[in-house]
Amino acid sequence: MVWDAWGIPAGRQPLSAQIRGLLAQVFGVSGDPVARRDEGDVPLRESALTSAQRDGLVAMVGADNVSTDHHDRLRHAGGKSTPDLLRRRAEGSQDAPDAVVFPADHDQVFEVLAYCASHEVAVVPFGGGTSVVGGVDPVRGRFAMLIALDLRRLVGISEVDPISGTATLGAGLTGPQAEELLAAHGLSLGHFPQSFEFASIGGFAATRSSGQASAGYGRFDDMVQRLRIATPMGTLELGRAPASAAGPDLRELFVGSEGTLGVITEVTVRVHPKPETVGHQAWSFPDFATGAAALRAVVQTGAAPTVLRLSDEAETGLNLARSGDIGGNAVSGCLAITTFEGTAAHVAARSAEANALLAAAGGTPLGAAPAEQWEHGRFAAPYMRDALLDVGVLCETLETATTWSNLADLKAKVTAALTDSLTGQGTPPLVMCHISHTYPTGASLYFTIVAKQLDDPIAQWHIAKSAVGDAIVTGGGTITHHHAVGTDHRPWLPAEVGDLGVRVLRAVKKELDPAGILNPGKLI
Amino acid sequence: MVWDAWGIPAGRQPLSAQIRGLLAQVFGVSGDPVARRDEGDVPLRESALTSAQRDGLVAMVGADNVSTDHHDRLRHAGGKSTPDLLRRRAEGSQDAPDAVVFPADHDQVFEVLAYCASHEVAVVPFGGGTSVVGGVDPVRGRFAMLIALDLRRLVGISEVDPISGTATLGAGLTGPQAEELLAAHGLSLGHFPQSFEFASIGGFAATRSSGQASAGYGRFDDMVQRLRIATPMGTLELGRAPASAAGPDLRELFVGSEGTLGVITEVTVRVHPKPETVGHQAWSFPDFATGAAALRAVVQTGAAPTVLRLSDEAETGLNLARSGDIGGNAVSGCLAITTFEGTAAHVAARSAEANALLAAAGGTPLGAAPAEQWEHGRFAAPYMRDALLDVGVLCETLETATTWSNLADLKAKVTAALTDSLTGQGTPPLVMCHISHTYPTGASLYFTIVAKQLDDPIAQWHIAKSAVGDAIVTGGGTITHHHAVGTDHRPWLPAEVGDLGVRVLRAVKKELDPAGILNPGKLI
Repeated sequence: MVWDAWGIPAGRQPLSAQIRGLLAQVFGVSGDPVARRDEGDVPLRESALTSAQRDGLVAMVGADNVSTDHHDRLRHAGGKSTPDLLRRRAEGSQDAPDAVVFPADHDQVFEVLAYCASHEVAVVPFGGGTSVVGGVDPVRGRFAMLIALDLRRLVGISEVDPISGTATLGAGLTGPQAEELLAAHGLSLGHFPQSFEFASIGGFAATRSSGQASAGYGRFDDMVQRLRIATPMGTLELGRAPASAAGPDLRELFVGSEGTLGVITEVTVRVHPKPETVGHQAWSFPDFATGAAALRAVVQTGAAPTVLRLSDEAETGLNLARSGDIGGNAVSGCLAITTFEGTAAHVAARSAEANALLAAAGGTPLGAAPAEQWEHGRFAAPYMRDALLDVGVLCETLETATTWSNLADLKAKVTAALTDSLTGQGTPPLVMCHISHTYPTGASLYFTIVAKQLDDPIAQWHIAKSAVGDAIVTGGGTITHHHAVGTDHRPWLPAEVGDLGVRVLRAVKKELDPAGILNPGKLI
Repeated sequence: MVWDAWGIPAGRQPLSAQIRGLLAQVFGVSGDPVARRDEGDVPLRESALTSAQRDGLVAMVGADNVSTDHHDRLRHAGGKSTPDLLRRRAEGSQDAPDAVVFPADHDQVFEVLAYCASHEVAVVPFGGGTSVVGGVDPVRGRFAMLIALDLRRLVGISEVDPISGTATLGAGLTGPQAEELLAAHGLSLGHFPQSFEFASIGGFAATRSSGQASAGYGRFDDMVQRLRIATPMGTLELGRAPASAAGPDLRELFVGSEGTLGVITEVTVRVHPKPETVGHQAWSFPDFATGAAALRAVVQTGAAPTVLRLSDEAETGLNLARSGDIGGNAVSGCLAITTFEGTAAHVAARSAEANALLAAAGGTPLGAAPAEQWEHGRFAAPYMRDALLDVGVLCETLETATTWSNLADLKAKVTAALTDSLTGQGTPPLVMCHISHTYPTGASLYFTIVAKQLDDPIAQWHIAKSAVGDAIVTGGGTITHHHAVGTDHRPWLPAEVGDLGVRVLRAVKKELDPAGILNPGKLI
């Protein structure tokens, strides 16, 4: 990925004339992008790596796999939240890890951790680098030295078991790499978060990720069968069976542990045969409440779509679900999307059941095209954010989840907190929302916020983020549905699990990482 | 429940002439039951409760709720494993808690725990008392005093949310009590383990229970939305949303914690509308492998039955799935059972899909009657065990789970370990098995073992249990699929989670229960 934006250079999307017109009208910005800095010109914090430390690391992973290159350090300078990107685009020196280390396998990961624990070196485990919550930022804590531990060489696939539908994947595999290896066996994982193209298997587990097909294939935590984890104190292998009553499920301590308790090096996942048939269908609902009730009927009846989404009036009106048409002719109502996958008979039976429920709940079928268009553009939104940041427009997303009965209230409270906070700063925002993940008992709410940037857009967003975090926890939501805690949500973790819950996590960390080298400043 | 057997006196089942004939033929036993001891005649370990301790406890819960009665103590003397029942039927004195305490609510539970932590009193949290792994046995560890903390007064229902399909249940509610309270709202939990009639909501959570309808409604851990837990260090409230990425899922540390980390006082569960329609269907398969492959096709396709079971040839031959016919005319092949629940349209669509898959996989439909007969008798098997124990026949069950590809191997290894061990002791067993729970990646195996008792049947079973535990862990299974660890499976916990995993659990326990009063000798 490029150092100061999302993705690859070829993915950059200049703003369409439609969007530029919209921005001029709503925010009064010209839409002319500011030039980004040339990577080579960026001053970087000097590496604190001593030659003794370099020798120590090289002895474990080889000289080619310990880098203090400007290029490598800059690419491990943090994740891809809007504050991350704004910091990177700001004038002045950039912080970065003192070195980037590329271990070859589990044993090397363990050796590096043990070395760093005894040499007071902080370690940021690094997968795809797509965190949007500060999860891979080079926070040193009490340590003078910090390395990024890049897992990109852990790309194996083993123990492919088509009978049981499981496969063991190296933590460094990206989404497309994993799907390609599985496709050779006629299998698929079916985990498609927006970060799919760049994020890694280990990162999916470490951040408790959820993909766009979660209605059908589950969240990533549902897919995890077994984990291999390196900690400074040794190795853990967790998960012996499809289900067990042998005490607490320790996998669930490490799924979502964000590299603070150990480094996940291998994940055995549930996979499925590549679907015979995929059916798409879009629907229009007169308003969000009607659409939400319709989605609820589908998920509570067990009609089992693969994808089930609903955009609110604001998001539908701007065509945000259909990237090619953003800012085009206004669309009324609320757009919903379903897909069904499996055998032809399975798809026919399930979509018939869902279609009947959606129609009975007030939906109007729009055919397959809008759903296919959404699917086509579904990984592109972060590029759009970059284009907006380039023209002085703030763009960020955040998400929560709550019960069906609390969904409308929480949506209103979050929207009000964002609107009040940004309007109070003189930059009234556009706030759009969709339901991206559904469960029998509730759903997620994913918000996109756009506003004119102030001179200090990081401070501007920080004020809004604080307000919305408070609104979420007092409004009965979770501070994050699928983007983890990192640095950005840490202030609200006690509201999620209580002070005693935080103490439990600290006790586990102390047992596995007594020196506290693992990802300081994140999660707890 | 009665003190020395399962259930209530009215449930007792004398052995049929058919079964007596079978026992005479196979084991050479007469089938005439030994009289059980009269409860009042049983010598009991003297209560160590001091008057100061009684005063301390009474101050918190009231005089009526601190009992040292012979009757109460005997009913809290342990669980209902075969060794438990054999111990209770043996000559001589019985061990029991020094007192039984009945707190009224969460706050009283916390107060009692804090008191016991500061007064060196061990605490066995006690729900329905149905543990079959020694989970509620009065193991004192280093403590001179031990109380049973009986949660039967925590029977509230609150926050019933029919829109979201959730309800908050007191930990002391039994299965039938919970279903009755939910039925008043048109709702059902759908958790039907064999212990349903007596076991409690808190116990289901603390032991990571799984019910017979798990294919449709999930394991109990899937149902848990929120937990309220009292620990000596304070209260935990865990679970804020239907799904979250806010760090490790701490609920999963307490589900399955078996009262060693805290006392679960309240559980918010996922519930569903009482089904409109229930469809039953039985099938015959020529052999276990064919039947297992058929079940796999159903669960991997997502045909979503509520119940999905398969008895092996031995179990089918003895009609064990149909309690009225046990030992009757031999039946060949393997019996499978499906039920489907939901709206009429849902049941029709799902059962059509499953029936096509089962027929294509080699099944012959047997109509609804055998499935209805199984459902009718499904909670009665433990009474049958008591009748066998009464006539000098050993009867015990155990279960494991593994992947589909390992299922046949593991079944053979477990069967061999049981057969070799008991035959080696001169008591060749009958070993029967069924698949009771299915997952996309694998299934459970539930074994029933019957053999002639030796003079010391506890030692006899202990030898067999040791052999089978080793066979399970070396054979790639989990030491328990739905009955928890307790005392009986503790030797194999390091094989499940590793020594480092055990250290993690100990670190959590030390944080929450530094005095170590909570359920000593269980789990870790």
